[in-house]
Amino acid sequence: MGEFDLIDRYFKKPVHHADVGIGDDCALLSAVPGHQLAISTDMLVEGRHFLSTVNPEHLGHKSLAVNLSDLAACGARPKAFLLSLALPRVDTAWLEGFSKGLFRLAGQHECELIGGDTTQGPLNISITVLGDMPQGQALLRSGARAGDDLYVSGTLGDARLALEAFRGHISLPESVFRHARARMETPTPRVQLGMALRGVASAAADISDGLLGDLGHILKASGVGATIELSEAESLLGCSAIWPCPSELAHTCILSGGDDYELVFTAPSHARDQVQAASSRSQTAVTRIGTIRASAGIEVFDHQGQPLTRRFTSFDHFADA
Amino acid sequence: MGEFDLIDRYFKKPVHHADVGIGDDCALLSAVPGHQLAISTDMLVEGRHFLSTVNPEHLGHKSLAVNLSDLAACGARPKAFLLSLALPRVDTAWLEGFSKGLFRLAGQHECELIGGDTTQGPLNISITVLGDMPQGQALLRSGARAGDDLYVSGTLGDARLALEAFRGHISLPESVFRHARARMETPTPRVQLGMALRGVASAAADISDGLLGDLGHILKASGVGATIELSEAESLLGCSAIWPCPSELAHTCILSGGDDYELVFTAPSHARDQVQAASSRSQTAVTRIGTIRASAGIEVFDHQGQPLTRRFTSFDHFADA
Repeated sequence: MGEFDLIDRYFKKPVHHADVGIGDDCALLSAVPGHQLAISTDMLVEGRHFLSTVNPEHLGHKSLAVNLSDLAACGARPKAFLLSLALPRVDTAWLEGFSKGLFRLAGQHECELIGGDTTQGPLNISITVLGDMPQGQALLRSGARAGDDLYVSGTLGDARLALEAFRGHISLPESVFRHARARMETPTPRVQLGMALRGVASAAADISDGLLGDLGHILKASGVGATIELSEAESLLGCSAIWPCPSELAHTCILSGGDDYELVFTAPSHARDQVQAASSRSQTAVTRIGTIRASAGIEVFDHQGQPLTRRFTSFDHFADA
Repeated sequence: MGEFDLIDRYFKKPVHHADVGIGDDCALLSAVPGHQLAISTDMLVEGRHFLSTVNPEHLGHKSLAVNLSDLAACGARPKAFLLSLALPRVDTAWLEGFSKGLFRLAGQHECELIGGDTTQGPLNISITVLGDMPQGQALLRSGARAGDDLYVSGTLGDARLALEAFRGHISLPESVFRHARARMETPTPRVQLGMALRGVASAAADISDGLLGDLGHILKASGVGATIELSEAESLLGCSAIWPCPSELAHTCILSGGDDYELVFTAPSHARDQVQAASSRSQTAVTRIGTIRASAGIEVFDHQGQPLTRRFTSFDHFADA
């Protein structure tokens, strides 16, 4: 199968948002007056972002999900994406599965494939995603203010728990592993919550490298610090509902797990009702885990109100380099 | 050096077109009323799109050039790009050179870096480029009509000549090799010509896989065929000005060379003066090499007006797979 047959067979679909999709030198998208375009890109590499054993359908889902998660963090509505794919060989079973997982999630968010590139090479998946929102309504990292509440969406740490099991560092009961693995391989981008938080949240980021690391981006951009109450955060590990996770492991997974694709966000304390309304409207749980303060840094307080002294590091793709 | 230090040091620059550039979850770009956004993406892999020995400064140039060439083919004005980079290791000399070549070309076209991703992995460069044009003025592949003139910009085949020399299939005099290699490694995207051809050309594409292959895309999209006069096309090999290239090799390089990043375009015969004006305004040579006809396929006529029967194939990234 040649390059163009491959594109026609697995990736060419009719477009609705775009004026021109796959098949010309560029895709064309008309400007929506009064709107801003939000654009983000993520590259996934075997061994770094996914294991070689991953189900291709899950990989198709995850490749788009991690990009949609960036749109969610800005409160953007997804519109379109471009996919560049380096493949070691044309493997039709893999392409069937990958495109199925990809387009299922794309369809759920009415996000259409408008262009891309395919080539032979070590497996590499690079997606650029485009969304939009009314001018000036984007959620930025820089808007957190001292006194704001600190929230996260959904559950945290399960993807890291699965990774620890895959690496053989821990052993999990079958049902726990299944749950954790699903969170790692098929994360849910919080697109509806992000849109519902426009005009409510003061700052937001998505959690891809771990809560402390990504919260750190908000704090740096906003010039503030934060305190986290472990008593509030501890229940965030999804698996803890079905399995008594050792406390230290749970803390590591929740605070610096990575691959969560939940939102961490801040909002003024007078907006608690609005945050709850956004949570209900988007059918996405949110948990208040702490407070923004003026002084820099993050302090985590234990159940006794004592600051934890243990250091947590966030994920860095060049940490070994 | 960590991921974020690397981005800060080599890739973070102030933005002018964008509202928000690198450093948040998404870049933000305001819609320009009455305009269409043109978007394209290209992925470059070592061994497929460049040799491991390439000067990183040239590679930085080429990575963006091949993307700008897609904007040129649509007549779009470049605005911004996103860069995803998988690197085997953090090599500061390589990053210095790569970013220098990349930003020099970006600056020439006022095309700013607004986002991206970096990760460890086999060397892979994936760029998504955004440009715009007034609504409805994009050059498409589908507009060629029987009777239109057929043109190409600049020179063709020199990149292929260099590749044949690198592969050891031919031997070139030093000065010829230097010229051919420069065309292969630092192609010139025809952005100014593309913009000048708005409202003049009936169809356009950029030549990345070889003239016959990329002309084929126009013909298929337009439902027409073409004839090419070899007597007109033969002089297109840039190196032929300084070296008597064997005729059959010259024909192969010109007709199915690939990596040219010139434009192939069509225009009604009554627009010849306008095509020449666009050529002058953009300081880019154009050559009329044939005619669009109603019947499908491409026929190449030799100096005696006889059709060539030799088959030429265009470049396919999965041809070996």
